[in-house]
Amino acid sequence: MEIEIGRGKRARRVFSFDEIGIVPSRRTRDPEVVSTNWNIDAFHFDMPILGAPMDSVVSPETAIALGRLGGLGVLNLEGLWTRYEDAQPVLDELAALDGSVSAIKRMRELYNAPIQPELITQRLKEIRDAGVTVAGALSPHRTQEHYETVVKAGVDLFVIRGNTVSAEHVSSETKAPLNLKKFIYELDVPVIVGGAATHQAALHLMRTGAAGVLVGFGGGASSTTRATLGIRAPMASAIADVAGARMDYLDESGGRYVHVIADGGLGTSGDLVKAIACGADAVMLGAALARASDAPGAGWHWGQEAHHDDLPRGNRVNVGSVAPLEEIINGPAHVADGTANLMGALRRAMATTGYSDLKEFQRIELVHSAK
Amino acid sequence: MEIEIGRGKRARRVFSFDEIGIVPSRRTRDPEVVSTNWNIDAFHFDMPILGAPMDSVVSPETAIALGRLGGLGVLNLEGLWTRYEDAQPVLDELAALDGSVSAIKRMRELYNAPIQPELITQRLKEIRDAGVTVAGALSPHRTQEHYETVVKAGVDLFVIRGNTVSAEHVSSETKAPLNLKKFIYELDVPVIVGGAATHQAALHLMRTGAAGVLVGFGGGASSTTRATLGIRAPMASAIADVAGARMDYLDESGGRYVHVIADGGLGTSGDLVKAIACGADAVMLGAALARASDAPGAGWHWGQEAHHDDLPRGNRVNVGSVAPLEEIINGPAHVADGTANLMGALRRAMATTGYSDLKEFQRIELVHSAK
Amino acid sequence: MEIEIGRGKRARRVFSFDEIGIVPSRRTRDPEVVSTNWNIDAFHFDMPILGAPMDSVVSPETAIALGRLGGLGVLNLEGLWTRYEDAQPVLDELAALDGSVSAIKRMRELYNAPIQPELITQRLKEIRDAGVTVAGALSPHRTQEHYETVVKAGVDLFVIRGNTVSAEHVSSETKAPLNLKKFIYELDVPVIVGGAATHQAALHLMRTGAAGVLVGFGGGASSTTRATLGIRAPMASAIADVAGARMDYLDESGGRYVHVIADGGLGTSGDLVKAIACGADAVMLGAALARASDAPGAGWHWGQEAHHDDLPRGNRVNVGSVAPLEEIINGPAHVADGTANLMGALRRAMATTGYSDLKEFQRIELVHSAK
Amino acid sequence: MEIEIGRGKRARRVFSFDEIGIVPSRRTRDPEVVSTNWNIDAFHFDMPILGAPMDSVVSPETAIALGRLGGLGVLNLEGLWTRYEDAQPVLDELAALDGSVSAIKRMRELYNAPIQPELITQRLKEIRDAGVTVAGALSPHRTQEHYETVVKAGVDLFVIRGNTVSAEHVSSETKAPLNLKKFIYELDVPVIVGGAATHQAALHLMRTGAAGVLVGFGGGASSTTRATLGIRAPMASAIADVAGARMDYLDESGGRYVHVIADGGLGTSGDLVKAIACGADAVMLGAALARASDAPGAGWHWGQEAHHDDLPRGNRVNVGSVAPLEEIINGPAHVADGTANLMGALRRAMATTGYSDLKEFQRIELVHSAK
Repeated sequence: MEIEIGRGKRARRVFSFDEIGIVPSRRTRDPEVVSTNWNIDAFHFDMPILGAPMDSVVSPETAIALGRLGGLGVLNLEGLWTRYEDAQPVLDELAALDGSVSAIKRMRELYNAPIQPELITQRLKEIRDAGVTVAGALSPHRTQEHYETVVKAGVDLFVIRGNTVSAEHVSSETKAPLNLKKFIYELDVPVIVGGAATHQAALHLMRTGAAGVLVGFGGGASSTTRATLGIRAPMASAIADVAGARMDYLDESGGRYVHVIADGGLGTSGDLVKAIACGADAVMLGAALARASDAPGAGWHWGQEAHHDDLPRGNRVNVGSVAPLEEIINGPAHVADGTANLMGALRRAMATTGYSDLKEFQRIELVHSAK
Repeated sequence: MEIEIGRGKRARRVFSFDEIGIVPSRRTRDPEVVSTNWNIDAFHFDMPILGAPMDSVVSPETAIALGRLGGLGVLNLEGLWTRYEDAQPVLDELAALDGSVSAIKRMRELYNAPIQPELITQRLKEIRDAGVTVAGALSPHRTQEHYETVVKAGVDLFVIRGNTVSAEHVSSETKAPLNLKKFIYELDVPVIVGGAATHQAALHLMRTGAAGVLVGFGGGASSTTRATLGIRAPMASAIADVAGARMDYLDESGGRYVHVIADGGLGTSGDLVKAIACGADAVMLGAALARASDAPGAGWHWGQEAHHDDLPRGNRVNVGSVAPLEEIINGPAHVADGTANLMGALRRAMATTGYSDLKEFQRIELVHSAK
Repeated sequence: MEIEIGRGKRARRVFSFDEIGIVPSRRTRDPEVVSTNWNIDAFHFDMPILGAPMDSVVSPETAIALGRLGGLGVLNLEGLWTRYEDAQPVLDELAALDGSVSAIKRMRELYNAPIQPELITQRLKEIRDAGVTVAGALSPHRTQEHYETVVKAGVDLFVIRGNTVSAEHVSSETKAPLNLKKFIYELDVPVIVGGAATHQAALHLMRTGAAGVLVGFGGGASSTTRATLGIRAPMASAIADVAGARMDYLDESGGRYVHVIADGGLGTSGDLVKAIACGADAVMLGAALARASDAPGAGWHWGQEAHHDDLPRGNRVNVGSVAPLEEIINGPAHVADGTANLMGALRRAMATTGYSDLKEFQRIELVHSAK
Repeated sequence: MEIEIGRGKRARRVFSFDEIGIVPSRRTRDPEVVSTNWNIDAFHFDMPILGAPMDSVVSPETAIALGRLGGLGVLNLEGLWTRYEDAQPVLDELAALDGSVSAIKRMRELYNAPIQPELITQRLKEIRDAGVTVAGALSPHRTQEHYETVVKAGVDLFVIRGNTVSAEHVSSETKAPLNLKKFIYELDVPVIVGGAATHQAALHLMRTGAAGVLVGFGGGASSTTRATLGIRAPMASAIADVAGARMDYLDESGGRYVHVIADGGLGTSGDLVKAIACGADAVMLGAALARASDAPGAGWHWGQEAHHDDLPRGNRVNVGSVAPLEEIINGPAHVADGTANLMGALRRAMATTGYSDLKEFQRIELVHSAK
């Protein structure tokens, strides 16, 4: 759907979760006879939920807890746990900060502590020792420096996550950019990479050999890329576009299925449902999990762009504490606002609309509503 | 109206009451020469209003009062009146609860009292003894357990009401689902069934032999299915679609007219007018009647999904008390916000636009406005 | 622009002033070389502004003041001035009432005083004696009872104004409705009649022989017809449609030009500008003039539907007092919100877009914006 | 995109910055390898930013500071600096005024002091002496009176700026309007002229020989032309249209490139990014720079229309003080709302979307989103 903005300038109409919905149709089903299984590479998950590699969301402890609940916690390998032997006092200090400018300055100081490779090794070992699937994330510009440590420490899934990750990065002459295709080819570990927000960007990432692509660009609760950079990638359209790229790449590659993981702007169980309905295979949750009373953020939520040195593009936001992680995931919910029992809600949404598994549910018809 | 959300994913544009309106045209009429009669099966009503089977809306007393005013009160047969010999103390306790989590937990306890079949019989008798039309409602999963009690007690209209009721329900192997078609065929009482929100779902319900279909999915004041489940079924489009199914079924069945009853999201007289204008034969009112000073909810309004055990999908909301039920229905109104004199408003809307009966008014032209 | 609401139900997309604007183009002009003259029948006005026949807007005094400023005040002939020999104490009492239910009840009592024909005569004489054009308004259902008094008292322009006035009104058998066509034909005075909100309704009113048609249906600041009746007639589309009817009738009648007067929803000078830009010949102002410090409403504004006996469809709203009537019309404005210097704003809007008279300005190109 | 408002009245759909965005695609880039150079006539700038000729934004000091940062400050030559030998006490008094009517009256008095030609000369000399590019602005109706003083004093770029400036102005017979074409032809200095908001208006201005055209009509933070005049020229469409005119004129003139400068409604770095993405060569900033702690407005912002004698069409608004001018332009930002590090944000937006210079970035694909 192209529209004309002015003489010779066109724009594509794109849609956010707020503008769409699913609607029950001819058949219904009991929630008990619905499957939410998700498999990527050799790994099986009971639910299609990844904890985002953000310090307010995933600590080694919550990565373990999420894994035991059937999902996957992705640890941020350049956050507080790999900069501090004991991250708790830093988290405690952060929890006591307000949203002022001086708080941002203090965050910058706290994140200025150097990343210690031996802590990367140690944190990943803590998770592995608990017997759950191990996943860690680096940003593209730190990948080259630290990936060997990560691989040596042992990860099941390697995540390269930035606001925007492209297969074709142009650097200044003094820096050699990460060659994603070569990197992924040589690595012995499946890689999930993103964010990408368009069909074309995702297709190029798929061609690098990635096992999964993260869809999104700063759409989360803590992001302000819209005001700061003018960038806008509403999730419903972004996911549908990348799911389209998955299909095109499946064809072009003669059968390689790259997983589409919605990342950002998934604040409620309703959003999670819509992400799958738009074509996502799984979702990476930030604020939704930061609301757990046992989340490391202690009621606050922030991404790395909140304490950027000269151009912060996100806020540290107070999301509150709703319930323990287990209740956030599996209920029982005591509130009716989509913040708890995410999996119960997904199962019921699938059941009410008559679907039995996630792959089938991706094909549900959508409605678009303006109010 | 289909739009493209992204590559290969389309959505249908649907509309809420907020986005539409009616507009006077060539002819006008005195409100006195307008008829609001409604007949379903052998039953005649002076007005097309059903009280929703919700404990905040319809008690045996209000069912009787609504019947005497010319409408139909549908009693919830799995609510407080069939769980408690004396429901009043429970209602009093509920009225004193606030909207907190502990209130939800207390509601769950109160609704945990078992349904007593003899109370079903007794409540229906109370209504029948008053000489008005008798209607009671069960949810689909309790229908098989209690319908014989209901039928034996004697009802004129049997209502099966859930968020979504389909003609094709899939259960786990250990439970045999209600076979609606067989059930309705064997029952000697006309059945009203729903909710359905699409043409296809409604057409299948019509084929079960139902006398009426409820249109809606959690669109009411107390519902949060949009945030929790991502489900969205704006009423204007839902009613128009189901009215389209009524026409198709009329043709396919060689003349069986199944009534379309809008259920949910009808907060004001303006909404009631729009529901008929979109094609509804009658409306089932919740919050609009819960605002009566003599309603059982005492200023509060809630549905069964508000105290669901693990996934509440609605709130108990404070709707306040506007006027006695009689004034809510027939006026005089002392406020100009659409909460009182619902029937006076319907008559005036029909008169101002030149229509003389409901069936004709269903054909009025609509306008769509974005502001 | 027709859209599909659901199966077999379509709606026309209509637009409010909020959604449109005018835009400067190739030519500009000094405000001094712009004409705002308006002529209807034998009457000339320096500005296309009528004061609405509402008790908060037009008293005999303000009718005279408006006339001297170059506009036309239309006196409500069934309001306080024809019910009370001395209306001031009643206005004072009203000014002291708040917006509560008891205030509505008191309004009903005050408006229950009978209309005194000799006061109709006296009020019109007061205006005539001041040497300005005389105009009075009756509602359709009181026209037959009082028009002879009005005509005998002498009016230059006779206004028949209701929420909706049609050329084809159906009454109960015991009442004979006003036959507009016959009435206007026999009357020796030019008649302005409305409201009408559609092309068809307006065309029929034009065929009755009216000199002008009022466009609108309860779109004013004090109206709640949208919530109460579900009726919606956004002004931009309503005016454009009726202006289209003016053109069609001009052709069909071989040259009779019926004036299109926008009535309702004109709160700011920007709205006034847009009304003309949509095709109106003149505007009838309510709230915009009720904001005058010398308006009879003393900062409050209400229509007759605010104190309706059983179905009020409007509120008495506090619009405040902005400036004396003369400043509201001709400035200087000391605020920049469109509430003062209405004519200065109209002249500047015409000048900035290069137009020199109202008839030409009706042809300006519009833009539609959603934000 | 034309839509029908009503019978025979159509409107063009236009878009604001709020409704559009840019989106990353296939390629990314380091911000360090992005150029923001801008050249107009013989003048080079490191960044495409002009300070608006408004007394709250550009003083001789801030013009110098902006010049040294790589941009261009345009001094208002009919503001306080050319009316008062010492403007500071007047600015101090203004800073202490609130937003009341009496404040507007006092502003009118302060701006009633006569413009002193020798102060024009002196102020421009102050800027020239600092070694930066010199630019001064007059409104069209004061250009004839003062331009000789300005040219004699020496300016590098001459700006003629009004709400709307057309190539074809019609005055009353007693005044001869400024003949822009003749004026620009005879002047030896490059002229930037506007605002224009449509393709046609801009094309005519380009034909006068102007070096640049300002795009906008009162879209800024302090403007209320929408409420007062009904005029609406959303910036995204206005810029795209004028950029279209630039291309048409390039062809028609055989190669003359007229610069398109977005003026108004650019409150954040995101808006700045979108302006270039819509086709602007540079942006003229008002409120965005008035937020500098060293701006002359001291936290307040106003245009000349705020103290108009009889029809103010703007407010003096409190925009607060965010950071020193240097941080507003080049960071570091300590807030993430788009008010600081404008150039850092522009560079990052270009880098993230893979563009290396402004001219290329004008061709980026846009998205349109309603939420």
